[in-house]
Amino acid sequence: MRVVLGLRRLKLVFSIGSGTRTHSLTAASMRLVQFCPRGSEGSMRVGVERENGVVDLKAFDRSMPSTMREFLELGEKGMECAQRAISSAERVLPLSQIQLLSPVTGPDKVVCVGMNYRDHCLEQNAPIPTEPIIFSKFPSSITGPYDDIHLPDESQEVDWEVELAFVIGKKGKHIKEQDAFAHIAGFTVANDVSARDWQLKKNGKQWLLGKTFDTFCPLGPALVTTDALKDVHNLGVRCLVNGDVVQDSNTNQLIFKTEKLVAWVSQFMTLYPGDVFLTGTPPGVGVFRKPPVYLKKGDVVECQIEEIGSIRNTVV
Amino acid sequence: MRVVLGLRRLKLVFSIGSGTRTHSLTAASMRLVQFCPRGSEGSMRVGVERENGVVDLKAFDRSMPSTMREFLELGEKGMECAQRAISSAERVLPLSQIQLLSPVTGPDKVVCVGMNYRDHCLEQNAPIPTEPIIFSKFPSSITGPYDDIHLPDESQEVDWEVELAFVIGKKGKHIKEQDAFAHIAGFTVANDVSARDWQLKKNGKQWLLGKTFDTFCPLGPALVTTDALKDVHNLGVRCLVNGDVVQDSNTNQLIFKTEKLVAWVSQFMTLYPGDVFLTGTPPGVGVFRKPPVYLKKGDVVECQIEEIGSIRNTVV
Repeated sequence: MRVVLGLRRLKLVFSIGSGTRTHSLTAASMRLVQFCPRGSEGSMRVGVERENGVVDLKAFDRSMPSTMREFLELGEKGMECAQRAISSAERVLPLSQIQLLSPVTGPDKVVCVGMNYRDHCLEQNAPIPTEPIIFSKFPSSITGPYDDIHLPDESQEVDWEVELAFVIGKKGKHIKEQDAFAHIAGFTVANDVSARDWQLKKNGKQWLLGKTFDTFCPLGPALVTTDALKDVHNLGVRCLVNGDVVQDSNTNQLIFKTEKLVAWVSQFMTLYPGDVFLTGTPPGVGVFRKPPVYLKKGDVVECQIEEIGSIRNTVV
Repeated sequence: MRVVLGLRRLKLVFSIGSGTRTHSLTAASMRLVQFCPRGSEGSMRVGVERENGVVDLKAFDRSMPSTMREFLELGEKGMECAQRAISSAERVLPLSQIQLLSPVTGPDKVVCVGMNYRDHCLEQNAPIPTEPIIFSKFPSSITGPYDDIHLPDESQEVDWEVELAFVIGKKGKHIKEQDAFAHIAGFTVANDVSARDWQLKKNGKQWLLGKTFDTFCPLGPALVTTDALKDVHNLGVRCLVNGDVVQDSNTNQLIFKTEKLVAWVSQFMTLYPGDVFLTGTPPGVGVFRKPPVYLKKGDVVECQIEEIGSIRNTVV
């Protein structure tokens, strides 16, 4: 059942098994992207997916901005324009004519969460945290969903980490858990690429450097708006290296769920549209294998999340 | 002696005591600021100081951008415009008519260095690091040179840290030490405000959260271009709390100097115009006093660096 009524929230009552519950739906069920038209690399655009391609929002409506961060700052005005763009059949570019970029670039923050899957704690003999453990990557580490991961000469221990990511859509501080979803624009797939030597053994054990080499944050392929997912906390999460499944879990294993993370982090700082959260990785990373396994040139890493999509990056 | 000849470097020979040495000077000796005209808060401008006030660069030349980050991205074109603005007597706003903001806002990175003064290591019985220890603050923590520091309910142990800061002017990766100065636009004063409970005892000992509460990075008052300082590694550095001197050192005590920090960090990531570096704090912070001393509402913290200036923030 799908009812399109602008952006007004609509209470739907539907039955599950023998009971009924209410589910809040809006029409803003979309897959938003950043891209550049092939042949004009460097000119970024915001787009919205349609079955036959991507609508260039700025071509559809000249008042629309060229970056996702500015688009999200418009709030409902932007979302409504994207809805109109989907309904119209205008300005659709076939996928063959565009290069998909990360759905967000240049955010104020890339907030990362450590040890947020129960099984991932067990695999490293670490206690289950009672509070989220927050670290960060610099925005300069973000790269596109199909771009190369550059293996730095400075590390011999580069590892994969598939993660559910979400992006803030609305500014806020001290956000309550029950209000958190209204501050999330949507979800995407991340690979929290990690140089274990720099993360765990060097730099005074501050994780930052090992997490933030250039290209260590592949993100995409689309920003899937919250209303497009029935339950973000029940999605299969997988990572494949050269076609072999190395991580295989479900977001129902998250210790701190998305609403809790928004509430927790916004105690410390104001969240802004475009801020990216990486919610942590499930078990199966290379560093805890016996013997450890690390990425090498030529490897292809694919990170998949059910209903959201898949990113695929070659290590060079 | 001051010779203005556009941006061309000029070798000056001058005598110091009984000897002579050459010193490389350019005319790009300026104090750049961000400000908003009083009464139009929210409309940010880039300016350059003159003895009688600040020139609004966008009013002087409509092609100039409104943020320091964009201004720095223009490279020499921007610097030349600022030079013309100083030479002209046009569009000068008296200080009484403006509110000074942080000289940089919204950078890609705020890179921080831990334990980078010899004496600061000794006061905490920590070994002198053999490599820089790098952590970060989020850009959302940046606040103006005379703005309030908001004491969060979430911490009982908020501390001061005066620091020499510098700002990247030119993009680069794997920058060599001998080339580093060409990538630095200038220097400013920072207070690396730190919630010691969150930095040192919680969050899995990742320092980030304790360092990045809103308003925990007062910065300013001006971005003093590299050529305005004879020797950035021989400047007095002081912090005063309610008029009492609590930190009193000199940048000649830095373990890793600015060129080394640029070279080190650019091994890991591309540096972009506007990126801010905080170079570490000298001894005298509150947490290592016996008994420890922390900031409370009503305290006034002043951070001073010789030749650069002073920032003064009230704790509220």
